[in-house]
Amino acid sequence: MQFTAQQISTLINGTIEGDPEVTIFQVSRIEDAEQGSLAFLANPKYEHHLYSTKASIIIINNDQELLKPIGATLIRVKNAYTSFSLLLEKYNLIRLDKHGIEEPNFIHPTAQVGKNVYIGAFTYIGPNVVIEDDCKIYPHSYIGDNVRIGTGCTLYAGVRIYFDCIIGNGCIIHSGAVIGSDGFGFAPQEDGTYHKVSQIGNVVIEDQVEIGANTTIDRATMGSTIIRKGVKLDNLIQLAHNVEIGSNTVIAAQTGVSGSTKVGNNVVLGGQAGIAGHISIANKSQIQAQSGINRSIEEEDKKWAGSPALPYASQMRIQVTMSRLPELEKRILELEKLLNKQG
Amino acid sequence: MQFTAQQISTLINGTIEGDPEVTIFQVSRIEDAEQGSLAFLANPKYEHHLYSTKASIIIINNDQELLKPIGATLIRVKNAYTSFSLLLEKYNLIRLDKHGIEEPNFIHPTAQVGKNVYIGAFTYIGPNVVIEDDCKIYPHSYIGDNVRIGTGCTLYAGVRIYFDCIIGNGCIIHSGAVIGSDGFGFAPQEDGTYHKVSQIGNVVIEDQVEIGANTTIDRATMGSTIIRKGVKLDNLIQLAHNVEIGSNTVIAAQTGVSGSTKVGNNVVLGGQAGIAGHISIANKSQIQAQSGINRSIEEEDKKWAGSPALPYASQMRIQVTMSRLPELEKRILELEKLLNKQG
Amino acid sequence: MQFTAQQISTLINGTIEGDPEVTIFQVSRIEDAEQGSLAFLANPKYEHHLYSTKASIIIINNDQELLKPIGATLIRVKNAYTSFSLLLEKYNLIRLDKHGIEEPNFIHPTAQVGKNVYIGAFTYIGPNVVIEDDCKIYPHSYIGDNVRIGTGCTLYAGVRIYFDCIIGNGCIIHSGAVIGSDGFGFAPQEDGTYHKVSQIGNVVIEDQVEIGANTTIDRATMGSTIIRKGVKLDNLIQLAHNVEIGSNTVIAAQTGVSGSTKVGNNVVLGGQAGIAGHISIANKSQIQAQSGINRSIEEEDKKWAGSPALPYASQMRIQVTMSRLPELEKRILELEKLLNKQG
Repeated sequence: MQFTAQQISTLINGTIEGDPEVTIFQVSRIEDAEQGSLAFLANPKYEHHLYSTKASIIIINNDQELLKPIGATLIRVKNAYTSFSLLLEKYNLIRLDKHGIEEPNFIHPTAQVGKNVYIGAFTYIGPNVVIEDDCKIYPHSYIGDNVRIGTGCTLYAGVRIYFDCIIGNGCIIHSGAVIGSDGFGFAPQEDGTYHKVSQIGNVVIEDQVEIGANTTIDRATMGSTIIRKGVKLDNLIQLAHNVEIGSNTVIAAQTGVSGSTKVGNNVVLGGQAGIAGHISIANKSQIQAQSGINRSIEEEDKKWAGSPALPYASQMRIQVTMSRLPELEKRILELEKLLNKQG
Repeated sequence: MQFTAQQISTLINGTIEGDPEVTIFQVSRIEDAEQGSLAFLANPKYEHHLYSTKASIIIINNDQELLKPIGATLIRVKNAYTSFSLLLEKYNLIRLDKHGIEEPNFIHPTAQVGKNVYIGAFTYIGPNVVIEDDCKIYPHSYIGDNVRIGTGCTLYAGVRIYFDCIIGNGCIIHSGAVIGSDGFGFAPQEDGTYHKVSQIGNVVIEDQVEIGANTTIDRATMGSTIIRKGVKLDNLIQLAHNVEIGSNTVIAAQTGVSGSTKVGNNVVLGGQAGIAGHISIANKSQIQAQSGINRSIEEEDKKWAGSPALPYASQMRIQVTMSRLPELEKRILELEKLLNKQG
Repeated sequence: MQFTAQQISTLINGTIEGDPEVTIFQVSRIEDAEQGSLAFLANPKYEHHLYSTKASIIIINNDQELLKPIGATLIRVKNAYTSFSLLLEKYNLIRLDKHGIEEPNFIHPTAQVGKNVYIGAFTYIGPNVVIEDDCKIYPHSYIGDNVRIGTGCTLYAGVRIYFDCIIGNGCIIHSGAVIGSDGFGFAPQEDGTYHKVSQIGNVVIEDQVEIGANTTIDRATMGSTIIRKGVKLDNLIQLAHNVEIGSNTVIAAQTGVSGSTKVGNNVVLGGQAGIAGHISIANKSQIQAQSGINRSIEEEDKKWAGSPALPYASQMRIQVTMSRLPELEKRILELEKLLNKQG
């Protein structure tokens, strides 16, 4: 990473004050910045850092007044925070702009790969796979038979997609995620053993979904496990067979959703939560971390906590009372003594 | 997938009513079926779907009477559910029937690979490995030095088996599972650092075990971590060093078992449960999801819930009372006021 | 594994009693040992096993007296336990002593690889990567652009390190671990969708850190996610963006730490614990398994349990009282009846 003030200013339509040839090689918070750093100041609360920072370039608002002269080169823009965010996005686009097909790889002759793609070395692309334009498939990815991947997807190193699964456009899947492993279905036999139930369905992931590292999504027993448009999944999440996650739902790390459960749209699930099977969660529900949901939530836009979960406010009251439990027990004992005496 | 009614009927010894040349290309529930779908009807409760479904072929019981004429081709069998399940198994066998050794691969010259196997591209098979007949090893699998894998096993893409581990016959291991990583053993030193304890044991997995995606099973410090015959493990499970899981035990996703603990036979562990180290769990115990087991369970065939876990019925009673805790506190306060007044 | 008594005795500076040519091919506990096993006796409590074991070689203390003649060859040392541990370490060093660069691999021409390394087949080493001397990189590892790995590290099969991350000296990373995946950061939009916040930071792992199988460590949004010297992480752990873990802290399996949280030095986190974001945990804190920490812990060297966590002793008292809750409710009812009668 190495940019001049001039280059940065051009990217974000800014106005330079100072040396346009100054060069930065890293991005930092203004309070941590060293020489060669780019930083920004948006919140007037942090203005004092302007006069002490060692940053080489600072992005600031057009209307930011200066109380003292400053060593750094300034780039003035309408909204420093927005411009800075935009800059990081552009920077990441440049930095992650991989192209071409690395060797060795395994691309089955019946697979179709679109234009302007990156296929990392050691990638396996099975029979009848379709990968559309502008995808980046990092090394060690496994894409099983008949899988279809939409335009503009990124699969980081070592993603595994089993046969017949479908990925929409603009999805990002992180390393080690497994899509389409068998649902956990076994029929108990009379002798105590279990007979595997064939899992012949698939997983369908709609557009703009992000899936975290080492997250697992099982294929449906029959039909599809479905992840709707705009869903964001963190790391190490387990979604079981025939689950459906509604659009724009966000799930934090290490949460598990059991088989055939339907989570609504715009739901927020905290980390390490567990959702039982064969239930449904209403739209806009907010489930606290480590909650256990063992029955359907029918009312929309409510907050839940605890295991088993209760409405958030009730759960908070219960937790407060619970912390006084030993004291409550003593008070009961006092009352009993008192009544005994009276009696 | 494309089959005629004639082909399906032959596979399940059925009798055709209608056009034997009708073709299906997918399998659906009777209520969701479209043209080109195969469905089945076993439960008379759903008989009305027979007359509205768009399925092209329906498997039904020999004794199913029809109230109206039906457009679909029927295949009559003794037990529609059993025949349908059988059909799916046969279909999966055909669909997943991979053979041959793909290139590039790394098979050490001292490794022995049996007959009728599938070895996917980018598979690594280390020195002295033995892989018996009829195994399917999908791409990107890593099989470390001296590992032995029995007949008829399937390892999906990206399974990792460390050196010296032993896998029985008929096992299925899903993508990203790690078998034989070091046990988590460190000796605390006087200066606050930790000294690694060498983990020289292995993992032994008996026959007919299924292991879910991204599940981890650590090798023993000395001796073996043992997974007995017929055990079924879901995704993202952690089994620590020197654990033993008894035969036909089933463990749901994201559960963890700590070091040296012995879980009995035919136990059912719900998801996200945690089992402490150095304890034992009696045969046929049933542990609810999110439970925490911190002491041995000695009585067989009991149900447990909560963290720390209690017998299921007790735990349910406590949870009900807990939801009334704030109210109970008020009642105590009322009593105190009343007695104060009386006093 | 095959060693003579003479070879073992030389390694640990022992004195042989019996046949120096006796050969062992495995290591066992003295009570389980079979012919061809090496065992040790350190604790006098187990002395009786000396006379019944089938072990071929036994390491014992210099001052151990024998009540009867023994068939096994003895190797006498000052401290049998220490010598045995040392032997296992030396054995593991020999056993895991891989060298050389296997084919096929992908090593970018701009990458620098040190001396005396092992690079397994199918390893991917990206542009500008630096790998220092004495590293062992097992097959299927992915090392992204600009990553730096210090001397003497071991990466087991299928480790994934995203671009720009830094690994110190003497680190061990187990299979399937993912270092540097994107932090889980999304800005909610007015239409209910989420806009991805670019994650441009990295992960910095200091010296002597061990990371378990399938553990995930996200890169910082800006700056670094930092794992300090001597940290030991078990399997399936989630560390979110901008987390900092203090030196010599130990974290058990399946625990999660949310974004921007700072865990102190010499902390012990039990398994399946969850730590909220943007808080700090004091040095030497001990957090029980399955705890939920939702606020900062400021006092050092305290023990915590429960979710939400409380000081350990308080939590234990509450749990005991909780198990009597239904009984407490009955006692309140009795009091009410009594007072009603009195009233």
